[in-house]
Order: sequence, then C-alpha cells, then structure tokens
Amino acid sequence: MNKKKISKAVINRLPRYYRYLGNLLEMGVVRISSKELSEKMGVTASQIRQDLNNFGGFGQQGYGYNVENLYAEISKILGLDKKYNVIIVGAGNLGQALANYVDFERRGFYIKSIFDLNPKLIGESVRGVEIRDIEKLEEFVRSNDIDIAALTLPKAAAPKVASKLVSLGIEGIWNFAPVDLNLPKNVVVEHVHLAESLMKLSYRISSNKDL
Amino acid sequence: MNKKKISKAVINRLPRYYRYLGNLLEMGVVRISSKELSEKMGVTASQIRQDLNNFGGFGQQGYGYNVENLYAEISKILGLDKKYNVIIVGAGNLGQALANYVDFERRGFYIKSIFDLNPKLIGESVRGVEIRDIEKLEEFVRSNDIDIAALTLPKAAAPKVASKLVSLGIEGIWNFAPVDLNLPKNVVVEHVHLAESLMKLSYRISSNKDL
Repeated sequence: MNKKKISKAVINRLPRYYRYLGNLLEMGVVRISSKELSEKMGVTASQIRQDLNNFGGFGQQGYGYNVENLYAEISKILGLDKKYNVIIVGAGNLGQALANYVDFERRGFYIKSIFDLNPKLIGESVRGVEIRDIEKLEEFVRSNDIDIAALTLPKAAAPKVASKLVSLGIEGIWNFAPVDLNLPKNVVVEHVHLAESLMKLSYRISSNKDL
Repeated sequence: MNKKKISKAVINRLPRYYRYLGNLLEMGVVRISSKELSEKMGVTASQIRQDLNNFGGFGQQGYGYNVENLYAEISKILGLDKKYNVIIVGAGNLGQALANYVDFERRGFYIKSIFDLNPKLIGESVRGVEIRDIEKLEEFVRSNDIDIAALTLPKAAAPKVASKLVSLGIEGIWNFAPVDLNLPKNVVVEHVHLAESLMKLSYRISSNKDL
C-alpha cells in the first residue's frame, strides 16, 4: 500500500469514516455493508466502496466490511497507531479546552505541557498538565521529544513562536491563531480558523435570505 | 450581482481575502495590486483577479484594488454587514473561549447568552454575558430573536438540542460537537471538528515520515 496515492479528498473524508466506525465498534457492531454505512453517513454506497478501495478494500461480497479491521486500517493510515507528544502554547480558554479534551489521549496525542506568559497561570495545571513559563519552552521541547504544538495564542505572537518551534524540530503545528504561518515545506501545519468558519456560516445564512 | 453564481471554492477563499484586506486597512494601505496581494497571500495574481472578478472586480488597470471598497464588498458578500444574535450552548472551556473572543462582535456577531446545566456555572458570566440554565433556553430564544447557536456541548446532547433550536426558528448552527446533525435543508450548519483536524495533522506527519 502506498499512502501517497490516496487523494486529498479521500483523506479529508477518512476522519469521518473513522468516527462512524468507532461509534459502530462501541455499539458492538461486527460488520456492516456499504449500503448500511451509506445510510448512516448520508453518502452514496458507491462513494464508500470507491473510497475504501483506495486502501485495499476489505469489503467482501455478501458480507460487507469487518468493522474492527476497517477501523484499525483507517487508524493506521491516519497515523493514529503512533504516539505523539503534544504541547499547547497559550493557556487561555481555548488552550485549556484542548488540554481538557480526553479523547485526544485515547487517539495517541499526549499533552505534555502548556505554556503561557501570564504569571497568574504559570504553575497551575489543567487535568494534571502543568502550565509552564513560555521562557521554558525551548528547554522543554529539546528534552521531551515533542512532535506537535498547538498554538492557541494571540495572532501577533504566533509566527515568531511557530518559527522557534520549527527550529527546535517540531514536525506539526496545529494553528488556532488567525494568521498564516510561513514555515518550511517539511513542517505540517493544520489551521483551525474559527472566525473564518463563522463567516462561512453568516455567508450561507445571508444567501439563504436572498433566495 | 447574483450571489448564487459564486462557486463554493471562491466562497471558501473569501474569509482569507477578508482577513488580509482587514490587516491592510489597519496598516493604512489605500490600494494594492493583484501582484502585491498575491505575494502577501501566497496565491497567484491570476487566481486573485479571477476570484475577485466574481463579484464585480473593482480592480483598475495600473491602479489595482481600492482596499476599503474591496473589504466592504467582501464583507457584504459574507453577510457581515448584518447583525446576528448568537447564543452558546455549553459553558465549558470551549464555550467560554468563544464568548471571550471580542473579534466576533466587531464582525456583527453578538453573543446574547450562554447556556449550561451545571449549577456551578449558572448565574456566572463571561465578559458580561450571563450563563443561564439550559431549562431557560426555549424561552430565551423565543423572546430574543436569536439567529445562530454555537454548540459546545458533549456529542450525546448535541442532536437533541440542535433539533429543539431548529424548531424554535434558529437559522444557523455552529457545531463543535463531534457528531453529524441531521437537520432540515434550510438550516445552515457549519462544523468545527477539532478531532478530525488533529487527525489530518497526524496523517500528514505520518506520511511525511514514510517519504
């Protein structure tokens, strides 16, 4: 199996398959046909077969998909069979919300520390994860094999912190600051632009009214 | 101008144009060429001209774009010339993070109340916005002309609350719960699936390693 051959569109749909299959597993479902999965997910059965064919299939005529195998396979493709050490930079509400999200650990993302410059927050902890002085960032990243940094800090500070993290060998940036980051091509950046998502919502509400 | 003719791909790019133009306005920039904008945004100048042509253009040969006009026009297309009354359902860290985000108000999104079922939170307030008992949701929505609800509550509760809100006439749902909502077609739903975003990040990190 060659991961590089899977199209971006399919990859974008994989987390949703993963979520549905996880729900089915929790409910004790052992196998499912593309037709049943299609009804649950609101996509066509042929789309599902096409998507899942991309990584070897596992569907069997008259049997359907083995939920556990398919879940494990998608999990592997998504890189969720590995463990990631994560830090959060910015201990405001959003940073704390991420630190509180237990599901991340279940999927292999271990939050090792949170950083902030607010003296009131430094030394506190969120669900057992210590908030450290941003001054300690470099030392901590160097000695704790950190893979991913979530940036939940003001946009003015984000580019500089991101560059620093990249120079320290961070492989992935999960960026919540409303600013584009110009980083080397080998660094993976995933943006969550909340304001942009809200604007798409208002666009669609406003176009609805014009219809 | 007919909004319906603008493709989804262009709409998805508009919030980013809006953000860049807003930054330029703040810096006092009066006009900009597609070439300069292209260098800042990292897209081709021809893409920019093509995108902006979709809604009448405003670019002039040898002059470029008037930043303020273009910003106002995009703002109008995105529905940001209107005001929206917003509630947040779920007063955890994520709900509080949204309530604390002042930029939303600057763009016309007014957070009117937050709802929760935790007695420790009810009666508290976040940046002047009161946290009310979820039992008061129906009455509040009915009497306050609410347009948008942000759902920052556990996934098990989200579908029922969403259906209730739709029955009360809510036009848009900004859904942070990791669950799909099956709502009538005329209701606008914008999802922010944080776990899925993190999985895309791990996928890309993990494929990087395989190269």
